[in-house]
Amino acid sequence: MASRDTKGLIKTAALTLFNEHSSGNISANSIAEHCGISKGNLHYHYRTKTEIVEALFDDIVAEMAVSWWHDENQPTVLHMAEMFERQLELIWRYRFFYREMATLVHQSPELHRRVGAHTEARIEKVLEFFEALVGAGVIKKPRSRESLRYLVVISWIFSDNWLNFIELQDHSENAEVINTGYDVIVELLYPYLTEAARAEIYDSYEAITANFLPR
Amino acid sequence: MASRDTKGLIKTAALTLFNEHSSGNISANSIAEHCGISKGNLHYHYRTKTEIVEALFDDIVAEMAVSWWHDENQPTVLHMAEMFERQLELIWRYRFFYREMATLVHQSPELHRRVGAHTEARIEKVLEFFEALVGAGVIKKPRSRESLRYLVVISWIFSDNWLNFIELQDHSENAEVINTGYDVIVELLYPYLTEAARAEIYDSYEAITANFLPR
Repeated sequence: MASRDTKGLIKTAALTLFNEHSSGNISANSIAEHCGISKGNLHYHYRTKTEIVEALFDDIVAEMAVSWWHDENQPTVLHMAEMFERQLELIWRYRFFYREMATLVHQSPELHRRVGAHTEARIEKVLEFFEALVGAGVIKKPRSRESLRYLVVISWIFSDNWLNFIELQDHSENAEVINTGYDVIVELLYPYLTEAARAEIYDSYEAITANFLPR
Repeated sequence: MASRDTKGLIKTAALTLFNEHSSGNISANSIAEHCGISKGNLHYHYRTKTEIVEALFDDIVAEMAVSWWHDENQPTVLHMAEMFERQLELIWRYRFFYREMATLVHQSPELHRRVGAHTEARIEKVLEFFEALVGAGVIKKPRSRESLRYLVVISWIFSDNWLNFIELQDHSENAEVINTGYDVIVELLYPYLTEAARAEIYDSYEAITANFLPR
């Protein structure tokens, strides 16, 4: 098997096991076993479990870079709803990472550096999207750029942690989880939305298909 | 030593070690060693590491119950700032728990049940506080109770995760971390605040002493 295929196999197995049991409870051995490869072969591709986690984080970054390509060119309420669902879908697939992020970065300076830099860069990109929303008359002119930045930060922290929060409760329906999360985002932004944008809010819920969660 | 003292000693040692190295990396043995007691003695008080984590969570709940006693009787902007700092100070002391919460509840059904029930109950209490703020003319009458509840939920998720978020960045000053967090809360609530309450915002920053973080 080509080296690239083996790496992909290892990452897929690791992601499945980490999501189910958390990365702390999974050994490199069990990942090798799950792939049907030897421990030595796994070690040849990734020397430590941390390297696998870093590789999975690189995949998150790469996926975001592709799908977030020039969101600021579509400054609509509809697109905002799509971005929210897209982000939650990604978080759901890499949910171990979003559950364990604070611990993982606390334990690995290298991951800390990467996640910190990525978060800063992404927040700047979302801020550009929000500024495009202001330009397009969706969001009212904010009191300051700093004030708009705080809205972005709070939306970011909320999105990163919504599925963790909802996991604390009993929830019955997929669509309910995503729609309720979007309800909260809408509530957050509502005072800042123009009248025209408010009229579009209800339609934007239709952009949310919420078909990625189990049950 | 009385059983209660030994339990306290174990919890204090565990909290220190968990905060520094995360609970996943600390064995019951190293906790016993840190306390200067035998492994058997530790086992007599807590059969598993999970039991120690549960006991620490009980302490969080007990502390909150004491300090959050009837916040709704002080529905002022000043008190809101104090509540925010109080919550962050508690999160800082038990920071391993707030870093690892999603993983811990995913791994222990009993902890899941307790944290879920506690979160639901506390959010209801904060909602009562927000309703008192409406009654006192600090917050404008919301569109609905649901709408006010979403504001509480987003504030809750933000507060629980602000220190984790800030840990991703380089920060130089204590006071800056807390004040910036409060800035974001103020930005969130600003559109809902009455004119009278907005005039009090600047003074409310003085309620934040922010002397609990290191550096």
